Amino acid sequence: MNTSAHELQFDARGRLRHLITLAGIERGRLDALLDRAEAMRRDSREGTRPLDLLAGRTAINLFFEPSTRTRTSFDLAAQRLGAQVINFDIARSSTVKGETLLDTIHTLEAMHCDAFVVRHQEAGTPAYIARHLRTRAAVLNAGDGNHAHPTQGLLDALTLRRRFTDLSALRVVICGDIQHSRVARSDVHALQTLGVRDLRLCAPPGLLPDSDSPAATVEFPQCRVFHNFDEAIEGCNVAIMLRLQKERMDAAAIPSAADYFARYGLSATRLARANADCVVMHPGPINRKMEIADDVADGPRSLILEQVANGVYVRMAVLAELLQTA
Amino acid sequence: MNTSAHELQFDARGRLRHLITLAGIERGRLDALLDRAEAMRRDSREGTRPLDLLAGRTAINLFFEPSTRTRTSFDLAAQRLGAQVINFDIARSSTVKGETLLDTIHTLEAMHCDAFVVRHQEAGTPAYIARHLRTRAAVLNAGDGNHAHPTQGLLDALTLRRRFTDLSALRVVICGDIQHSRVARSDVHALQTLGVRDLRLCAPPGLLPDSDSPAATVEFPQCRVFHNFDEAIEGCNVAIMLRLQKERMDAAAIPSAADYFARYGLSATRLARANADCVVMHPGPINRKMEIADDVADGPRSLILEQVANGVYVRMAVLAELLQTA
Amino acid sequence: MNTSAHELQFDARGRLRHLITLAGIERGRLDALLDRAEAMRRDSREGTRPLDLLAGRTAINLFFEPSTRTRTSFDLAAQRLGAQVINFDIARSSTVKGETLLDTIHTLEAMHCDAFVVRHQEAGTPAYIARHLRTRAAVLNAGDGNHAHPTQGLLDALTLRRRFTDLSALRVVICGDIQHSRVARSDVHALQTLGVRDLRLCAPPGLLPDSDSPAATVEFPQCRVFHNFDEAIEGCNVAIMLRLQKERMDAAAIPSAADYFARYGLSATRLARANADCVVMHPGPINRKMEIADDVADGPRSLILEQVANGVYVRMAVLAELLQTA
Repeated sequence: MNTSAHELQFDARGRLRHLITLAGIERGRLDALLDRAEAMRRDSREGTRPLDLLAGRTAINLFFEPSTRTRTSFDLAAQRLGAQVINFDIARSSTVKGETLLDTIHTLEAMHCDAFVVRHQEAGTPAYIARHLRTRAAVLNAGDGNHAHPTQGLLDALTLRRRFTDLSALRVVICGDIQHSRVARSDVHALQTLGVRDLRLCAPPGLLPDSDSPAATVEFPQCRVFHNFDEAIEGCNVAIMLRLQKERMDAAAIPSAADYFARYGLSATRLARANADCVVMHPGPINRKMEIADDVADGPRSLILEQVANGVYVRMAVLAELLQTA
Repeated sequence: MNTSAHELQFDARGRLRHLITLAGIERGRLDALLDRAEAMRRDSREGTRPLDLLAGRTAINLFFEPSTRTRTSFDLAAQRLGAQVINFDIARSSTVKGETLLDTIHTLEAMHCDAFVVRHQEAGTPAYIARHLRTRAAVLNAGDGNHAHPTQGLLDALTLRRRFTDLSALRVVICGDIQHSRVARSDVHALQTLGVRDLRLCAPPGLLPDSDSPAATVEFPQCRVFHNFDEAIEGCNVAIMLRLQKERMDAAAIPSAADYFARYGLSATRLARANADCVVMHPGPINRKMEIADDVADGPRSLILEQVANGVYVRMAVLAELLQTA
Repeated sequence: MNTSAHELQFDARGRLRHLITLAGIERGRLDALLDRAEAMRRDSREGTRPLDLLAGRTAINLFFEPSTRTRTSFDLAAQRLGAQVINFDIARSSTVKGETLLDTIHTLEAMHCDAFVVRHQEAGTPAYIARHLRTRAAVLNAGDGNHAHPTQGLLDALTLRRRFTDLSALRVVICGDIQHSRVARSDVHALQTLGVRDLRLCAPPGLLPDSDSPAATVEFPQCRVFHNFDEAIEGCNVAIMLRLQKERMDAAAIPSAADYFARYGLSATRLARANADCVVMHPGPINRKMEIADDVADGPRSLILEQVANGVYVRMAVLAELLQTA
């Protein structure tokens, strides 16, 4: 590993070549990507014709973890730009026959694949692939372990930028299993780059490094750590709720879903402690009645479906950015 | 459930918005749909170019039950109109992670899905989805429990309309597991609407409500019920054979496939009891030597593959009808 | 079986209608197919736009065996010519419900499928399908048992024709599980047709019929049989390594992967016994350190990824050839 994941994603002329992480991507570039997503949103809504920006290009969805929304979102984004999409079903593929990951990648490159959209349970897989490519193909990280989920960070940023004129004035809380969350990490990168200063992380003690631990300082600089959600949400303009893998409750010494909801779930009562304009976000899929109450998830403060919509535009923008310069 | 499945499928201006059931769809509208399917058939055969009527539109196949022919038929129909198709693999999707059906639907709506093609083992699921949509998306019922399979009813109607000039003069028998058959229900609706008066239902006693039972009167008005296939097929112009789930033989106290064939299968001998012009239909997939003899299935009276061909045209017509007005 | 697989693949006017086997395809036709693949290669590299040669046509991938590379290669080839592709997932299809193979085929034909790309564990399945078609659809054999894999034979021929000006002067060794290899059989047909005279087959004794056995004489005429790879590779210009199914090692009395590699694997040392210009090929997926050493697979003599690239062009050429005349 000679280059960092961040350095890896730029070419010699400084153009974005892969999207592995939002860490280190500067504000101007982030804004430009969001502007492009905004343009995709406008164009998509005005006409019904597909754009043919990526006609003749091939995107391959390489999902090593099951996923509905992210895979479908990338699939639609690529198709709506005119690209050909191959959904690569890992379970049924030759990787079962013992082919190495890199042999699979190089084989697909040899077939002239222009983009690999990669989700993998192990942090670092998209960077590993990018580092070993032999062509100009682009790697889009669709979520790797607890490392990063950059298009989620971008879509959350777009959603907030459309809602609030001045992000630097916002108080934002991210609540849930911070420890294992690639969404939290990419959101922190995106929001801090866009100027958010009052960023709070709230989780059960076992699911978040202590504020003064080296891990927390390195991973989440300038964030305030909370273990009490009532305190953390106080005066917030934005509450981003995370998904809790049920198998992680044990590790966090949480006896039940009801107990988790009582302490870390977002109820209308708890939301009342936030600022009056507070919006509610969640990357989905939601565990209802555990992370978030039905009336909040479906209420007027919820931007959850707005996030989903913006996800497609952000992915169109990223695909266009990476494949047009490729 | 404030509105019936029937009312649900029309918008405020009386245009067809979803296709959930053929029950209550009036003759003029049915004929118009079949005319459109006929036009699709003509256009498809003359040229090889795809139509681009639905370019930029997205159809999602949501199949909760495995299916070859219906899913492929809808997939081809949508692609041949230029639409983008997402095949949503339920087993591998986030629904496994515990997301509710409606969260899945609203998520896909947020990605600007124009049509949901839904097959589900539980009757009422497509109507339930249609009732809870938040956008102008259309729901196409591709088969729900034993309730309805409206495109099958339409394709069977198209097949018969192409074969016979006057449907009102026909004697039609539907034979098999009427009790559990959505095909039987949709065929009865389609054929009666198109004027068929002499409609006979034939099944083992356990697989068909008695003629005088309230269930039969409500579900199959104006149909004559038979338990003896030799009597039922007498003088018929059309014999529609249904698929028997092998696990239903027990419930019907049928000891073996051979026994079922002897009593309710369509052999050449039995077909000779029908009218000389009698055609044979089956929604497929066929259990050969159980529901139908090989020489009948593959013989000159069989319209089985004609039904398959018409299925694509009918689905093109329905997609065009629903998505153009959407 | 009235007609041979070879006769079956031509129509009344002598044009190629199916591609089941390369056996018996004469040199002029083989060269023409390779010329067309070469043209596809040139056109694909110059522009990024998809060709629309097959717009409105439908290809169905019917894979009864799992496969990554071949299915993806056919999928991309068809899409890049503008065709619609249906990937028919056998495990989830109605074939589970007991529908016969031919009912499935006839159903798909009735939906106006133009090409069936078939992979099946049983030799003869593509020919069986071709023999029972009711339409002008084309069958492309994507590998059937140990019988044939004609597009692999073509892509290997293209790869060698691009590398060497005079194939008739080459010494070629094919090494591995010859007995069970459809790749070996199709390569032998392609290379002998193109003039290769010094063709050597090398395998463990249990995995290759003896040279003087009737089986070998019939199946591999004019080939020299070796059981010692060091002898076989002597002076070769081309080494084609085959995949060994691990479950076949027992039958061949090979105690371990290491032992197989020691006797039949391609190491740099062994490669040094070949001619100085010797190239290395493998149909993939590779069992590294068993069939081939890493430094050889990834070294300058390896044409393995070139084979993959040519696979797409060859399949485009075959699809265009079969569907344009269809």
